[in-house]
Amino acid sequence: MACENARLARGGIAVSILDQTKLPASEERLHPDTPEQCRSAIERLAVRGAPAIGIFAAFAFCTLAQKVAPAPGPRSWEAPAGPDFVEGMGRLRDYLAQSRPTAVNLGWALDRMMNVVREHAGEARFDMLRALRAEAATIQEEDIACCRAMAEFGLELIEDGWGLITHCNAGPLATSEYGTALGPLLLGRERGMNFRVFVDETRPLLQGARLSAYELDRAGVDTTLICDNMASVVMAEGWVQACFVGCDRVASNGDVANKIGTNGLAIIAAHYGVPFYVMCPSSTIDFTCATGADVPIEERDPEEIRSKFYERPMAPSTVKCFNPAFDVTDHSLITAIVTEHGICRPPFTESLRG
Amino acid sequence: MACENARLARGGIAVSILDQTKLPASEERLHPDTPEQCRSAIERLAVRGAPAIGIFAAFAFCTLAQKVAPAPGPRSWEAPAGPDFVEGMGRLRDYLAQSRPTAVNLGWALDRMMNVVREHAGEARFDMLRALRAEAATIQEEDIACCRAMAEFGLELIEDGWGLITHCNAGPLATSEYGTALGPLLLGRERGMNFRVFVDETRPLLQGARLSAYELDRAGVDTTLICDNMASVVMAEGWVQACFVGCDRVASNGDVANKIGTNGLAIIAAHYGVPFYVMCPSSTIDFTCATGADVPIEERDPEEIRSKFYERPMAPSTVKCFNPAFDVTDHSLITAIVTEHGICRPPFTESLRG
Repeated sequence: MACENARLARGGIAVSILDQTKLPASEERLHPDTPEQCRSAIERLAVRGAPAIGIFAAFAFCTLAQKVAPAPGPRSWEAPAGPDFVEGMGRLRDYLAQSRPTAVNLGWALDRMMNVVREHAGEARFDMLRALRAEAATIQEEDIACCRAMAEFGLELIEDGWGLITHCNAGPLATSEYGTALGPLLLGRERGMNFRVFVDETRPLLQGARLSAYELDRAGVDTTLICDNMASVVMAEGWVQACFVGCDRVASNGDVANKIGTNGLAIIAAHYGVPFYVMCPSSTIDFTCATGADVPIEERDPEEIRSKFYERPMAPSTVKCFNPAFDVTDHSLITAIVTEHGICRPPFTESLRG
Repeated sequence: MACENARLARGGIAVSILDQTKLPASEERLHPDTPEQCRSAIERLAVRGAPAIGIFAAFAFCTLAQKVAPAPGPRSWEAPAGPDFVEGMGRLRDYLAQSRPTAVNLGWALDRMMNVVREHAGEARFDMLRALRAEAATIQEEDIACCRAMAEFGLELIEDGWGLITHCNAGPLATSEYGTALGPLLLGRERGMNFRVFVDETRPLLQGARLSAYELDRAGVDTTLICDNMASVVMAEGWVQACFVGCDRVASNGDVANKIGTNGLAIIAAHYGVPFYVMCPSSTIDFTCATGADVPIEERDPEEIRSKFYERPMAPSTVKCFNPAFDVTDHSLITAIVTEHGICRPPFTESLRG
């Protein structure tokens, strides 16, 4: 399962990704090799999920580096990666970073790659590319270890036989290996535990229906798909003992930016006294944001609501659509934030720095 | 606008309805004239909305009565509507009443029609049919008067320039003339008031996107369509001053059964301190139900979630779907219930009987 979302070719440096927009109907791989194709893959959600975007951006960055400010002549690989290269890579960093403003991992991964560019500036291009490739691979390996650690901590919070609910997709497709929110569920299932998992379909792009339901079902988890507006019913019935979601950015005070609908789910969970857990690598915590109000929220194309996926448009073309891709969940609604370092409980201003 | 949802032919007795499943793409009328066609029109939501279902059922009942236990011979209209007729109509009542279990107006309208059958039993079939037709027309006229009265009371609760949110469709299509939840908005608009109305798309069948957005837009109301899971964002932004929904059944204690998602919206509104108003004719109040727990909740076909409206199925066929068509909103979350008699506030056990 590991690395299906994005991987480097074994021989040269090239990135390939599973096109998540085509799931679950078909499994197609893309091989983007221009800045435009790489940025478009992120923008149109062919690759999505905060950690997966970071890994893909790192892979794309070193793939595209091969074509930045190439030295002329037959032994170009031995020529130094000079100021032109560093400048070109800086422009590339900014171009890719703008593709999705909310996910902090994107800028974080690209900044790590830019540090490598600066450290190795002036060295032979061959050594520069090798160092970039190694850094990208490290980012992915760290994510695998991180997801496994998070899954272990998350598993401490749940019991065999419980009903659980998740929103959007924070499984293996969104990360590497176990995923964030789905990690405890998949790890528990591997160990023979049984859960009944409700998956919000997650309008407008249906990542819950298309991706989470697909991943959980393949892993043999008892999975029930619901529309987002049915979460209150399954909680009112007493069928849910905990909520698990991933996230795109955590502010210093524990406010969480995640897929649109997360905040509503957290409010409903609080109403019914159901614990609400957020799973994220510590790289998702942005200490430069004091509260969720500082997180930029991406607004997407109204046609995602009006017509995407449908046989025909589902609302008159004259009607406006408001399409925020994320929302902010207030820290007061969150029971715990689980990172690879452990389980952080309120007050988050202290526990997140611990 | 009145009676577009269901109407009787001017000459003979025949019912026609606007097929709501085809909106907003096309406006097609259906002319059901067998028990199976009439029941199917309700089941597959060609006609929907609690009051509209009641009116349609009454029209269908007298249309179908023409073929129940017909007397032989040329002067069959003068033959008495005897025990065979009464019995046949009783079976027809039960057959139609089973089409949707949650809406109380369906059984209520059919019971009124059955009372007419019993009152005129033994009279000439011609007189029986005339009495049935008159009763059905009365039910519709009462609904028009009722919607207008509700709209006037509802308008007392809102101010020019407010932001409002509604869920599902409780407009003219669901009733006669102004509708229930949309009544104050449409009446206010007629009087030159301006509102900014957010419409939940209302998964899985998108009555908000297809019907409410269509009705409000046609009436010149500033309308913004959102996915159900975005309601918490527009409330967090402070853009919503009140929620208006219709309902399918009210229990004696003020618990309200309405379209799936209503309960979640009410919980979120309470969280943000936004008033939550339920608009319904008094015929929707079911004093035989002590609380919402007594209301039967219809569960519908999983394919409505998995594949209906889509280009292709949006979840693997092996994944279960849970598809409750309604939910129950606890009376503690409701600011007021507005009927044609006035504005009922808590405690509802007293105010609903007032």
